[in-house]
Amino acid sequence: MKEWEGLTTVEEMEAATAALLENGKKVGADSWQQRVKNQTPHCGFGEAGTCCRICSMGPCRITPKAPRGICGCDVHGIVGRNYLRFTAGGAATHSDHGRTICHTLYETREGGNYQVKDPEKLKRIAGEWGVETEGKDIYDLAHEVALMALEEYGKPFGISRWLSRAPEHTRELWKNYDVEPRAIDREVSQSMHMTHMGCSSMPEALIHQAMRAGLCDGWGGSMCGTEFSDVLFGTPKPIDTEANLGVMKEDHVNIIVHGHDPSLSEMIVLHAQDPEFIELAKAQGAKGINIAGVCCTSNEVTMRHGIPMAGNFLQQENVVLTGACEAVVVDVQCIFPALGPLSKCFHTKFITTSEIARIPDSEFIQFNEKTAGENAKQIVKAAVENFKNRKPELVHIPNIKHKARVGYSLEAIKTELDGVTNSHVDELGTLKPLADVVKAGVLRGAVAMVGCNNPKVRPDTAHIELMKKLLKNDIILIVTGCSAQAAAKAGLMDPELAPKYCGEGIQRVCKLVGIPPVLHMGSCVDISRMMVLVADLAKDWGCNISQLPAVGCAPEWMSEKAVSIGNYVVATGIDTYLGVDPYTKGSSEVTELLQGENGVKKHLEANFTVELDIEKLGDRMIEAIEQKRKALGLNS
Amino acid sequence: MKEWEGLTTVEEMEAATAALLENGKKVGADSWQQRVKNQTPHCGFGEAGTCCRICSMGPCRITPKAPRGICGCDVHGIVGRNYLRFTAGGAATHSDHGRTICHTLYETREGGNYQVKDPEKLKRIAGEWGVETEGKDIYDLAHEVALMALEEYGKPFGISRWLSRAPEHTRELWKNYDVEPRAIDREVSQSMHMTHMGCSSMPEALIHQAMRAGLCDGWGGSMCGTEFSDVLFGTPKPIDTEANLGVMKEDHVNIIVHGHDPSLSEMIVLHAQDPEFIELAKAQGAKGINIAGVCCTSNEVTMRHGIPMAGNFLQQENVVLTGACEAVVVDVQCIFPALGPLSKCFHTKFITTSEIARIPDSEFIQFNEKTAGENAKQIVKAAVENFKNRKPELVHIPNIKHKARVGYSLEAIKTELDGVTNSHVDELGTLKPLADVVKAGVLRGAVAMVGCNNPKVRPDTAHIELMKKLLKNDIILIVTGCSAQAAAKAGLMDPELAPKYCGEGIQRVCKLVGIPPVLHMGSCVDISRMMVLVADLAKDWGCNISQLPAVGCAPEWMSEKAVSIGNYVVATGIDTYLGVDPYTKGSSEVTELLQGENGVKKHLEANFTVELDIEKLGDRMIEAIEQKRKALGLNS
Repeated sequence: MKEWEGLTTVEEMEAATAALLENGKKVGADSWQQRVKNQTPHCGFGEAGTCCRICSMGPCRITPKAPRGICGCDVHGIVGRNYLRFTAGGAATHSDHGRTICHTLYETREGGNYQVKDPEKLKRIAGEWGVETEGKDIYDLAHEVALMALEEYGKPFGISRWLSRAPEHTRELWKNYDVEPRAIDREVSQSMHMTHMGCSSMPEALIHQAMRAGLCDGWGGSMCGTEFSDVLFGTPKPIDTEANLGVMKEDHVNIIVHGHDPSLSEMIVLHAQDPEFIELAKAQGAKGINIAGVCCTSNEVTMRHGIPMAGNFLQQENVVLTGACEAVVVDVQCIFPALGPLSKCFHTKFITTSEIARIPDSEFIQFNEKTAGENAKQIVKAAVENFKNRKPELVHIPNIKHKARVGYSLEAIKTELDGVTNSHVDELGTLKPLADVVKAGVLRGAVAMVGCNNPKVRPDTAHIELMKKLLKNDIILIVTGCSAQAAAKAGLMDPELAPKYCGEGIQRVCKLVGIPPVLHMGSCVDISRMMVLVADLAKDWGCNISQLPAVGCAPEWMSEKAVSIGNYVVATGIDTYLGVDPYTKGSSEVTELLQGENGVKKHLEANFTVELDIEKLGDRMIEAIEQKRKALGLNS
Repeated sequence: MKEWEGLTTVEEMEAATAALLENGKKVGADSWQQRVKNQTPHCGFGEAGTCCRICSMGPCRITPKAPRGICGCDVHGIVGRNYLRFTAGGAATHSDHGRTICHTLYETREGGNYQVKDPEKLKRIAGEWGVETEGKDIYDLAHEVALMALEEYGKPFGISRWLSRAPEHTRELWKNYDVEPRAIDREVSQSMHMTHMGCSSMPEALIHQAMRAGLCDGWGGSMCGTEFSDVLFGTPKPIDTEANLGVMKEDHVNIIVHGHDPSLSEMIVLHAQDPEFIELAKAQGAKGINIAGVCCTSNEVTMRHGIPMAGNFLQQENVVLTGACEAVVVDVQCIFPALGPLSKCFHTKFITTSEIARIPDSEFIQFNEKTAGENAKQIVKAAVENFKNRKPELVHIPNIKHKARVGYSLEAIKTELDGVTNSHVDELGTLKPLADVVKAGVLRGAVAMVGCNNPKVRPDTAHIELMKKLLKNDIILIVTGCSAQAAAKAGLMDPELAPKYCGEGIQRVCKLVGIPPVLHMGSCVDISRMMVLVADLAKDWGCNISQLPAVGCAPEWMSEKAVSIGNYVVATGIDTYLGVDPYTKGSSEVTELLQGENGVKKHLEANFTVELDIEKLGDRMIEAIEQKRKALGLNS
């Protein structure tokens, strides 16, 4: 049996992309591949983090001859400030997304556009927050909890409610290092204040606040986003779907949902099933309506409805280049402004829907919680009516896709584990069976692989090749975001196909539990699921989070959100491995604080490793996991 | 009589600085003058706003050959995002300062470190906010109002309480353009979210949010800062003081307070009067303790206590270079990190006090509301004990200073006007007398001059020369921040000296009311005083704010706060004139939105003018004021 036979290789994906770019050339389409060429080489000051534009006396750039900016800030202050602002951008972005979800929860009503789909989860959270649930109308409860969640963004006193989910040891570390996040937005504002001209230039203080700002995201805004999305739209359960561009259908109206906030896409998915629109599609000559996703919006709807995934971040132009895309409907984040002019080269409607993401050359249909149903219908109708404008000579859908089983929320993982638990002997609803197989060495450990694509890495290669390497070493993967989609596109979430090539331990576990070796946990805000997973695992295992044989990895990250995530993952005690340099290499001090033994590691028991050689990055993760096993006294 | 005779010229100030730089050379001190040389020329992409570092695919820079970033964002999106982030930095900074003041108010208690000094103002604000004051203990009231103010930062629903102070017409404009700020921190976070990779790239949307983020500062966080500082420390009243480096005393312990937040400096001022420390100073060979200020902390304590002003932003190094500075005690914002190494060249103690502003090479004495008194004593003691370490051969205090009358809060201005009102005929406590003299043409109008220094402008020249020009044209000045200090240093706040050279109308008004022609309204957060002033003036006049013959001007601005201020001043209907280019010239669309007729002006009745030629900048302001007079049908 040839290694990984039957899976799609990166070369095959690249061939598909090449064909689409040929399609684009016919109509004069620009592409990110071309723009990367135009923008290379990048500014060395920017890449090193040594350029400061924080006041209008500058910009200042640090060189051996100009070792300080006009205000006297040195390179460590400049790099540190830039890093904190980068984090603040990410924390604000995730958290503001979470806020929208809380507002949506606040607008739920019986029979309304939005309803409570998982009342049990709502009650569980209410219980955690000390809210009486007994005999309360579920919508009254939803509004009460939503209001409390919204207050998490701006309460004048106190720390994040979600911290109570962490193990005691972790909470002590946070308390001692004074990084317990207060109101979510306050941490963002304070980060901006600290980095204002003439405020903090001490790297220790800046990195300290970067950790706190990260925590206000992962154990704050993102957790609100994940948990209340589950309440609103249902907590994901294992479901089968497909991934890669071949999920688009030549004979159907293809609507691509793209972005991050499920409030929009849930409504699109719902109304695309209206018989009225299906009839309309047929009247246009289509066989029906096909919804597929890109980026995290895709992850949201695939996790809950099995909606197929057309692709990840760097494939967003590809969906238009098929010539078979009637509409790209976007909400917020990671949307290429390039989709504006690109969609004009084809018949594609590029529909923006959020005041947060206004993009030129798009059609704007403002979406809000109160009018969501009507907005969604308007969008679906516009897409369907656009089918007739397709140019058949430009239609080219690559014949490339894989089956994938997705939907592994923490709740779903526990349910799967319950299936292999002897309920007469052992407690149900825990992660103990997982702990047991890792302790036994059947699984060596786990890697949480997350994050984006970035042209600085050959797209998807790092995700896919690292996963393969880890799987062969009996290290299981939990994944989110564009990393999850890379896995799905390659076939690594196909529970029939993928386990075959893994290490023996993983093969046994996959067979026994009936799971793929790479578990899709959701979108980028859903890395908060991973935080609760490691918290619960540490409790069930009886060790600290930092002792678990598990690490985080973002091999192709590109966004500020990824840095915010990295910070909260590290701050939660999980060593994190990056395949793209953050803009920090210009400062030895900031590098030491983030990556060394004497920085955040001293306080939070974890740090970053940056390694641009992907092969080495994998080796280092395996080594770290084996070291953690050894430290726990587990078999080698 | 020679024009402006008796005032200090910029040339004289520069000569004093030159002597201090010679002093610095003896000990190998670096200086901003040298660092400006090292950092020039600045990066053209940064200055034009056309460099994007918002994700790690880049940095991207826009050129004719690379008209879009890797994501496809064009130059207008990049410049617009950078502008919105710049604004968010400023709004967060002012507002977080305001938050500290609200927290301090929350900590007041009878006999405590902090007390309510202006209970009438507190009651007035409580009344505006619908809080019952009758029979309530003043500290209970303070805590109730402080909590409401703190909730302004994060309330899930509703708009800023302070907006109710604006005239109805202004509020309608805000409502129609949808820029009524919601919770303060939310506007900051949303600004960060909108500018995240793949969110907004439409300049209209970005500039729209920049206006809203500005308003959350001026009619939100800054207004909290100003109003509750008055409640805590007293509302300023006219008081005489002195300004320029000559206020430092060779035979005294000199403590310089620097930064922005009065919570620290108030305590320093208080405890520097402790007989115990004065005795200690004498025991060290000093005649006493002299407190002087730099930047806005200086403005705060001069307005309330007549503490002399040693200088403004670009003089902060000069205070150390005198060799006679025992301590520079700083709180937050606009503090040169250069003070770290510079203070090491002298005996000066550089004492940082806030977790927001951690600076290398400083001594950190953490200040907080609860321990403020003890902290202040520790600082004063350390400074006094440092007197003995002075090196007499390095002591050089330029013999240069002026008398200045300061303390013109809005309340004080009204009181002054009451003094010339016939109380039998006219209502007291209004701005009608001011409106009347402007209507009559005795005064042609007013300019609110604010903001920083910036080496891109010959320091203080623009402030001082513009003021002289305007005063000769019978245009009165209200000023704050480093602009106020420039005026005071030149002698323009000396009520005996300055009026002599002004236009006849101003001379009459100054004589009649007993004021200088340039009115010091406070620190940079106190530009909120100016907003209430124009709001009340428009109401008393019976016109819209944008119709008043008044404009704003920041001829030497440098900080993000200044851009946030500019936005809220424009958004309040006041045309604003800048002498330093914001980083926006790379985008014709952003420039049009901010400076043209079809941008914010269409919605908010005002816009920006950028004119680097200071002479022309003055001409354009005079022209604008005369045009507004004409439009109101006033005599020409």
